[in-house]
Amino acid sequence: MNAAGQVKGSLSGLFNARSIAVVGASPRRDKPGNHVIRHAKAMDFDGQIYPVNPTQKTIEGIKCYPDIMSIPGRLDLIVLIVGADECVRMAREIARRRDEKGDVAGIVVVSGGFSEGGSAEGEEKEKAMLEPLQARGIRLIGPNCLGIIDQYSGVNTTFDVPPYNKGGVSVVSQSGALAASFLTWAKDMEQIGISKFFTVGNMADVDVNEAVEFLGEDENTRVIALYVEGIRQGRRFVEAAKKVSQRKPVVAYKSGRTSFGSGAVRSHTGAVAGNDRIYDGAFRQAGVIRAATIAEFFYTVCAMGKQPLPRGNRVCVLTVVGGPGTICIDALLATGVVEMACLSDGTKGHLKEILAPTAVVGEPHGYVDLTGSVTKEKHEEIVRTILADEGVDGIIYLNTPPPFLGDEKLVESILKGYNSFSEEDRKPLLCVLTFGSNVAGLRLLFERGGIPTMEFPDIAAAVMANMIRYSEWRNTHKTFK
Amino acid sequence: MNAAGQVKGSLSGLFNARSIAVVGASPRRDKPGNHVIRHAKAMDFDGQIYPVNPTQKTIEGIKCYPDIMSIPGRLDLIVLIVGADECVRMAREIARRRDEKGDVAGIVVVSGGFSEGGSAEGEEKEKAMLEPLQARGIRLIGPNCLGIIDQYSGVNTTFDVPPYNKGGVSVVSQSGALAASFLTWAKDMEQIGISKFFTVGNMADVDVNEAVEFLGEDENTRVIALYVEGIRQGRRFVEAAKKVSQRKPVVAYKSGRTSFGSGAVRSHTGAVAGNDRIYDGAFRQAGVIRAATIAEFFYTVCAMGKQPLPRGNRVCVLTVVGGPGTICIDALLATGVVEMACLSDGTKGHLKEILAPTAVVGEPHGYVDLTGSVTKEKHEEIVRTILADEGVDGIIYLNTPPPFLGDEKLVESILKGYNSFSEEDRKPLLCVLTFGSNVAGLRLLFERGGIPTMEFPDIAAAVMANMIRYSEWRNTHKTFK
Repeated sequence: MNAAGQVKGSLSGLFNARSIAVVGASPRRDKPGNHVIRHAKAMDFDGQIYPVNPTQKTIEGIKCYPDIMSIPGRLDLIVLIVGADECVRMAREIARRRDEKGDVAGIVVVSGGFSEGGSAEGEEKEKAMLEPLQARGIRLIGPNCLGIIDQYSGVNTTFDVPPYNKGGVSVVSQSGALAASFLTWAKDMEQIGISKFFTVGNMADVDVNEAVEFLGEDENTRVIALYVEGIRQGRRFVEAAKKVSQRKPVVAYKSGRTSFGSGAVRSHTGAVAGNDRIYDGAFRQAGVIRAATIAEFFYTVCAMGKQPLPRGNRVCVLTVVGGPGTICIDALLATGVVEMACLSDGTKGHLKEILAPTAVVGEPHGYVDLTGSVTKEKHEEIVRTILADEGVDGIIYLNTPPPFLGDEKLVESILKGYNSFSEEDRKPLLCVLTFGSNVAGLRLLFERGGIPTMEFPDIAAAVMANMIRYSEWRNTHKTFK
Repeated sequence: MNAAGQVKGSLSGLFNARSIAVVGASPRRDKPGNHVIRHAKAMDFDGQIYPVNPTQKTIEGIKCYPDIMSIPGRLDLIVLIVGADECVRMAREIARRRDEKGDVAGIVVVSGGFSEGGSAEGEEKEKAMLEPLQARGIRLIGPNCLGIIDQYSGVNTTFDVPPYNKGGVSVVSQSGALAASFLTWAKDMEQIGISKFFTVGNMADVDVNEAVEFLGEDENTRVIALYVEGIRQGRRFVEAAKKVSQRKPVVAYKSGRTSFGSGAVRSHTGAVAGNDRIYDGAFRQAGVIRAATIAEFFYTVCAMGKQPLPRGNRVCVLTVVGGPGTICIDALLATGVVEMACLSDGTKGHLKEILAPTAVVGEPHGYVDLTGSVTKEKHEEIVRTILADEGVDGIIYLNTPPPFLGDEKLVESILKGYNSFSEEDRKPLLCVLTFGSNVAGLRLLFERGGIPTMEFPDIAAAVMANMIRYSEWRNTHKTFK
């Protein structure tokens, strides 16, 4: 039950909708109301899509309905892309449909013009829209949001995000643009696959807390990427996030750190950013990994979506290139949480045997510079030897790579070494490839093999540190069931 | 004259070489000694290339010579890609050639196996190689380096870097891999053009100080990107860099900050990393902008290569998307050097007239959120209006962009607004486009129009802050001639 005493509907009614109506559907291909229809249609969705537009017979080949009431059969989810006043009117019509037909689990309001503007008028409209829905337990996502995607059920209400790879990452965001960007960044290199995509906008009804709780229960979600500008009910957030963090990582980027930033947040989603240090404390308490930069946010999620957690903080930097290797060590130690792994004498002896005399092994601790003379075939043995060392909790592997190694063979050799361990014995392996689009093919091979790739050596260091931080938190906050 | 009393040859003899010999040239296309020949050949170079290999008649269609002495005519530059011992022998042969024919301005030693290994033996070899050259004023770049490129003269001694766009960026690096990566990162989006590329390796002879001094005098160099692990003769560096900084920006990334990192530096190029705080102070004194991350290093150089410096620290964030806009403001203010611009009443009034009612203008200060409703045609007037405001020193423009704006028209409109100012009245404009490869075409259009683009909003903030820091330093360190 919510504050007003009504029973809230479950969010799974929205994400598992079998029928979706789009109010504001447009035949014009340059309009958001058209993109929503096309994206919904392009998904692996075998339910019904109902464009609602009184002036059209069909849109994108799908039969159009003049209004919500006339849609036949059970209607689960309604998307609104019309003006704010029209949204208020629609909410009443949706309430009427619920009263008459008993359906509609929830609505997604893409439209803006509500509380985010800061005007009393906008706030009034938001309230007026919410009231008849809330009274009936119909859930509302938004307004002023991009909507939701469920790659497994095939629901997609966004005008910005076409169908995506299935996977274990779920995104919760107060910014639709940032959430959508997140997916496009990761697309070419197949850095992530998506379970659920969840933009909450002004959070008139469904808020970040509920979204995190919901994804905590989602079996397809392995890691949660959370972009927040301001959280209401901080104590509830900590409780919810802490429970989730005991099972899966929540990686967060919080903006509105400065007072000016808070001002922008106010005008963006109407949220109150609050004191940044309080957030810092709340995140730490809840085991939420807070990223310092957007790049760190993005790559930490990518890595956690594919790799196991490190069991300790002892990292080995395995490089073919001295400069990036040095930068990486430096950045690892600057995090304050990483120790360089002390390789065993056995490991060092074996590596020295198989490597060229110019190679550097364990000087300084945890640093192995293969130098350019290494052949691709040796990588399997090198990776296996280092991963088998009990003093090593994870590896960052760096390569330019020289143009003289074949991509397929190199990746095959490294993956052979990596996959020679059983799943429970695996340690994280991150891969830095610094040659821009020259290594696009190589990166894709690694990503498909489950090894996260990055362009910059210091980002890999920040990501590994975040994995260690979360692993340490989780070890000291075991779930007692 | 150098310490030993010999006259040092000028570096311009190497960068403006009219004839290049490659000792260790190989017919096998998977060998570095082959790539050097192909890259040299592919350049816009109308001098002579001489592969040296006693077992071949031609390599890549070019006549081969059995040794250095047999090369006819004047020989300016020699590249060595052979074993360390062979390099020592070659140095003596090069000295003999100099004594007999009076030519050879300098050599580039790609080979490793010298002081970087930390062994007395390696150091001995490096000395033995240098001695006969130094006695004759023949300059040595390296050993253990990638070599040099001059896009204007057409010299290219690298096995890793094919011909590149001409431009105003010069790179000096103790890591060949990082320097080469720098160029590949920037290639697809045409983010930079190159004047000189200068990897110094172990710095047996030519060091970072001399490289920076040399590029300070290079008319084609507009900004210097400097990657250093350790600098010898710190006082000389400060003096040299300070003189250069008064004319053009030097952007630096320094690794080996931590004691472990220093250990890796030792084994990489044999340099001593030194106390990091001393470097911090030296950079500040010399007006060198020190980047905190590799991404910041890269994008700061890109932006400074294309854009004018801001005259003050008052920045306007102009966005179509609230989330990334908020992140950007936040990151700007966290730098401690930026103020948000206070737009004049005239500017605000005019923007409100032409923008949609949902737009946010100047709340908070310096923040303009166009919201999705802006049309591409309006961008010209928006950009012109804000740039004309005397309270604004620079703009960061952010767009996702919505799929409903045409790329060409959008960029055309923004560039029209930007280019309506004369060159001396221009202010920096940075552009954040957060939609991954979906906006690759759009980014390229901006970059070709001279507007630097980035993927992440917080990186743009760090770059703008660096431009402001340098501008402030330069204003207080005017050149007195």
